[in-house]
Amino acid sequence: MRSVTDELGPFPDAAGYDEARDRDRDDPLAAFRHRFVIDDPDLIYLDGNSLGRLPATTRDVVDRVIDSEWGNRLIRSWNEGWWDLQLEIGDRLAPLLGASPGEVMISDSTSVNLYKLAMAATSHRSSRAKVVTDDLNFPTDIYVLSGVAAANDRRLEVVETGGFIGAAPEVHRAIDDETALLSLSHTTFKSGFTYDVAAMTARAHDVGALVLWDLSHSAGVIPIDLNGAGVDLAVGCTYKYLNGGPGSPAFLYVRRDLQPLLENPIPGWWGHAEPFAFDLEYRPIQGIRRFHTGTIPVLSLAPIAAGISDLAEAGIVAVREKSVSLSEFLIGQWEHHLARLGFELASPRDPGSRGSHVSLSHEEAWPIARAMVELGRVIPDFRAPDNLRLGLPPLYSSHVEIHTAVQRMKRIVERGLHHGYAGSKPTVT
Amino acid sequence: MRSVTDELGPFPDAAGYDEARDRDRDDPLAAFRHRFVIDDPDLIYLDGNSLGRLPATTRDVVDRVIDSEWGNRLIRSWNEGWWDLQLEIGDRLAPLLGASPGEVMISDSTSVNLYKLAMAATSHRSSRAKVVTDDLNFPTDIYVLSGVAAANDRRLEVVETGGFIGAAPEVHRAIDDETALLSLSHTTFKSGFTYDVAAMTARAHDVGALVLWDLSHSAGVIPIDLNGAGVDLAVGCTYKYLNGGPGSPAFLYVRRDLQPLLENPIPGWWGHAEPFAFDLEYRPIQGIRRFHTGTIPVLSLAPIAAGISDLAEAGIVAVREKSVSLSEFLIGQWEHHLARLGFELASPRDPGSRGSHVSLSHEEAWPIARAMVELGRVIPDFRAPDNLRLGLPPLYSSHVEIHTAVQRMKRIVERGLHHGYAGSKPTVT
Repeated sequence: MRSVTDELGPFPDAAGYDEARDRDRDDPLAAFRHRFVIDDPDLIYLDGNSLGRLPATTRDVVDRVIDSEWGNRLIRSWNEGWWDLQLEIGDRLAPLLGASPGEVMISDSTSVNLYKLAMAATSHRSSRAKVVTDDLNFPTDIYVLSGVAAANDRRLEVVETGGFIGAAPEVHRAIDDETALLSLSHTTFKSGFTYDVAAMTARAHDVGALVLWDLSHSAGVIPIDLNGAGVDLAVGCTYKYLNGGPGSPAFLYVRRDLQPLLENPIPGWWGHAEPFAFDLEYRPIQGIRRFHTGTIPVLSLAPIAAGISDLAEAGIVAVREKSVSLSEFLIGQWEHHLARLGFELASPRDPGSRGSHVSLSHEEAWPIARAMVELGRVIPDFRAPDNLRLGLPPLYSSHVEIHTAVQRMKRIVERGLHHGYAGSKPTVT
Repeated sequence: MRSVTDELGPFPDAAGYDEARDRDRDDPLAAFRHRFVIDDPDLIYLDGNSLGRLPATTRDVVDRVIDSEWGNRLIRSWNEGWWDLQLEIGDRLAPLLGASPGEVMISDSTSVNLYKLAMAATSHRSSRAKVVTDDLNFPTDIYVLSGVAAANDRRLEVVETGGFIGAAPEVHRAIDDETALLSLSHTTFKSGFTYDVAAMTARAHDVGALVLWDLSHSAGVIPIDLNGAGVDLAVGCTYKYLNGGPGSPAFLYVRRDLQPLLENPIPGWWGHAEPFAFDLEYRPIQGIRRFHTGTIPVLSLAPIAAGISDLAEAGIVAVREKSVSLSEFLIGQWEHHLARLGFELASPRDPGSRGSHVSLSHEEAWPIARAMVELGRVIPDFRAPDNLRLGLPPLYSSHVEIHTAVQRMKRIVERGLHHGYAGSKPTVT
């Protein structure tokens, strides 16, 4: 049996290669790949939607924080930039989200931010008994929303979609004048289904509900217009398409006119009107800062600026165009090479309701995923029970990479090389 | 008028110098100073209780995380160490707290951890109407506890101390069979007053209340025996005496037998019994991990290990002995040189109820603090309205440094050099 590792490609004789090469040749963002540290060029990384690659400038940011700011300036650095860093980076992120300066802040984890804003929203709509989400939402979001609902003697309604496509009509029916909050993932974590933010927000507002979007899988890869859609609240992750680094702190967005009306359920001195008075009484500051809780981890916060900077320079419209080109090409390749091997498309066919990852389901998805990593030098993501999630971050992915990855997958499954991994147990990837 | 900047010392002719020199000569921990990056030897840093210095090995940790783990191994690093890193570092920290393996975890910020554990504790003692703290507690703790009490229709009683010494008898009187939770700072942030953990915990347990200690200002500098005292819950900061770096994530402790009884109010997939099943239903895992919420910021998490490692090697008993020697010497120097210049001691005189910082109050504390930094090259902390907080981290502070710092302060105030700073406004330091 031939080994895949001796045959990593490229594969110019396999169908689709010329198209891939031509699309890469015409790719206006091709040069952005050099903005990232890629020290293992044989490896095809299709998991940048879980942990984005290392931007080349991140090293300089971290060196500065450690040597100059922490080592030399010590506590003085809080007065020399750290105290407002989460706001400055929030303001740099705002244009990618269609938000205005002063509406976005980096803070805590996505889950803690979701909790804070969902608690604030349900307290603000205190007479309404229901919180609505759907079963495509990220499990943590559902756990958090469930806890928020229970804490306030409300009920959480989880709309069943019955598949991997968001059920907009069923969600519409579920939200009514008893609904305090609608909270959904903009792009869902497993299938990449992407809701129409403006339409869903308008519908919720029609019945007087607030809306809280989780933008984790869309921020930095899909143009978002929070202000244009009148979105109330949003949270999201910075270590996926924003390339902020492992576990980098998350962002939260609160529409400006709502800021003075909402209460932070976990208030801290960072959000106090006079933090250095150390008053025993909490008096929130005006603006987004009132949603602060504790001190932000600076070493993980500062590098987010590097990730955002590359995206801002590329431009979110160009990023989206390339994202669609990559995912359309991948779906074409699946159809041509993989469909007959038991792979099914588990993402929307319409690029208009799809994010920047494509999921393929397969009965043997887990051993295939292991074989892809170990033999094929392709890193996908596995999502139970049968899902191979292929992330396509536009700044450093190419069409020829996708072509090569599909060919490696095809050879692994054709030759049954994944059977050797059937007994192993799913872990993080 | 002579300038202080031309005359930074040391001051061998000033009273106390010989004693300082002798104490340093006999200091068994003297060599630990070289474990830290100190690139500005004239600067006397008395704010390591706010942000600890940079350990020399931190740079290697961060290089490894960025280059090898993030840059090269990418998502695979979650399977190769990151997934349990917060537990491993918790286990390394546990001996410094008198806790057992599996009882300590790094997670979120101190404030978010306090919120999670206080919510869990009050839900567990659901029939009791009161939460008790005192007015020496850190303001954020009081804000958070106030919110927790309000969320559960309870009342927060803030015991008034009337000064800077903890009011143990008044706290004893305040806790009764209506009390769900007693939460205090072990070492208080302003005066450094330090409670007797064992006695206070026993008293709370006598009336059936749970106890939650904030160890931010004592972890890594005072021997703590959480298990011996039967403490229920604790939280604390890692960027002070643990030298974890700016805003490094905090720790939480839950006594082992309480872990299965308490519910995390902000549950996440990291704390799920089967995180990779991505179930829509939350089923908490056994053990401390159930108190997880979102992803931990790895770049800020990993360096905590370096800080703990130095402390563990020095030994917490030796660290405490040196801490007492430093603070006793500083108080002696205050008495001899500063008391007549309007400085008053605003910390307990008894080292047994004092942490590793000493506060001096002065009518002109803020301009003096500014002059100390700008002219005297001494970094204190200012705490409104009139408090100069002098932190004495034993691993890198010396008696001669303290002697020199006091002489610089003395010259500044004697010559009125601080009057030039009277108009400025307090900020972070």
